[in-house]
Amino acid sequence: MSSPHLRTYAYRAQNHPNAAARLLLETVVRKKSNLSVSVDVTSADDFLAIIDAVGPYVCLIKTHIDIIEDFTPGLIQKLQALSQKHDFLIFEDRKFADIGNTVALQYSSGVYKIASWAHITNAHTVPGPSIITGLASVGLPLGRGLLLLAEMSSNGSLATGSYTEEAARMARANPNFVMGFIAQRRMETVGLTTCETAGEDDFLVLAPGVGLESKGDAMGQQYRTPREVILKSGCDIIIVGRGVYGSPKNLDIQEVRNQAGRYRTAGWEAYEERVLSQ
Amino acid sequence: MSSPHLRTYAYRAQNHPNAAARLLLETVVRKKSNLSVSVDVTSADDFLAIIDAVGPYVCLIKTHIDIIEDFTPGLIQKLQALSQKHDFLIFEDRKFADIGNTVALQYSSGVYKIASWAHITNAHTVPGPSIITGLASVGLPLGRGLLLLAEMSSNGSLATGSYTEEAARMARANPNFVMGFIAQRRMETVGLTTCETAGEDDFLVLAPGVGLESKGDAMGQQYRTPREVILKSGCDIIIVGRGVYGSPKNLDIQEVRNQAGRYRTAGWEAYEERVLSQ
Repeated sequence: MSSPHLRTYAYRAQNHPNAAARLLLETVVRKKSNLSVSVDVTSADDFLAIIDAVGPYVCLIKTHIDIIEDFTPGLIQKLQALSQKHDFLIFEDRKFADIGNTVALQYSSGVYKIASWAHITNAHTVPGPSIITGLASVGLPLGRGLLLLAEMSSNGSLATGSYTEEAARMARANPNFVMGFIAQRRMETVGLTTCETAGEDDFLVLAPGVGLESKGDAMGQQYRTPREVILKSGCDIIIVGRGVYGSPKNLDIQEVRNQAGRYRTAGWEAYEERVLSQ
Repeated sequence: MSSPHLRTYAYRAQNHPNAAARLLLETVVRKKSNLSVSVDVTSADDFLAIIDAVGPYVCLIKTHIDIIEDFTPGLIQKLQALSQKHDFLIFEDRKFADIGNTVALQYSSGVYKIASWAHITNAHTVPGPSIITGLASVGLPLGRGLLLLAEMSSNGSLATGSYTEEAARMARANPNFVMGFIAQRRMETVGLTTCETAGEDDFLVLAPGVGLESKGDAMGQQYRTPREVILKSGCDIIIVGRGVYGSPKNLDIQEVRNQAGRYRTAGWEAYEERVLSQ
């Protein structure tokens, strides 16, 4: 079989074993958007304003719920209402990174109750397979999906080499709950032994560190264009943050809309070029 | 110079470059305790009851503030009052694991405002050095200390080999804010190149996965005794969770006190044996 990213999103939506992945792929097709906007602001009003502005252009909103200063449970209801209004899924970028027993509590409990509202969350593989077991015990019965952090876009990341290979193997051992990766490239052949060939699994690749202009920030973040990410590296979803909404101190909602539209077009054209070339 | 763990805690307290490490070592000496209790319960009442019970026996309380169901900012004030009453420090086991810009917000902001009350927190090194830069921008001006996760006690952990070596190097590059490691052994010679010798840095080693009886749980956690951890492996602080408070469903406060006393004695005797053998 050819690599899954050479098939259409519509085909992949019909065949994916994970419920959240199917929902995401269906949304991508309906909205002709492989754009996820990462909303990293600390005010609930800014958070909702940006999401309402970019909502029509995205398949997925990525949140860091734990940086919002004035969080209340009511904020989750407003986020869910926007998810309905604009037809997008929610991805809480929690980067779980503890042992199974602890992450199960962090995912289900506490103030945020992430599993109750986030269709998708993610985890580092550094604690070993117990992190997947712990999260799956909570998320699988709810139809949630997990992304593993196989690579990171920050300077000097240790998620390389054998670390990335082991992350790929952990995903292949858990294809029902693990729906894909946070990574910079396809993972089908990563971590295979010499006598193994790539299987039929369709792991989605969501790529952070995407920008049309800027090349990096002062804290070690690096950027690539949507075309590089989708067409050259074969990733499935582009994640864009400050490239869409700039500085939250000077929020210009019309400009945020314009940028979201621009990234959506860039991401979708790269996808069309990819599948039409087959 | 001999390895720092062969010196007394009192000597090390006078010479440590990190403010939170000095506070911790002074507390260890005053209380004759190298015991940290990890309080992994979801009810605020249980959380406070366990901390009040073990308070006299510990130098450090380890929290997962984000698993508490009925969290309010008032809970932090009560935790701080217990920290004063019983003379212990607070370590929020957040396991930060994102890029610099994001962890700075997660540490300073949001509902929990961890930097405002936790003397110590910890971070994975997988995102690369930007995670230390980001956290230090918030924590260093407040006199906080950071532990790096160099190893984990869970089955199949990827924090081994070159990953652990790189964590050790990152610590040595940031000795003012990085006060030590979460690990299972001394780190002085880990990750040195062939032409390097161990420096003068005194990185504290805090060891999780300590138990006097049980050998593991169903989710891949493994245990070692205080004597193995302090005497054989040269760690400085033992972290004990369910070994002290059992199941939160059947909380017996007198038994919790007894167990805390028992672990404190075991940890301290192992330390005395270690330094007296010099």
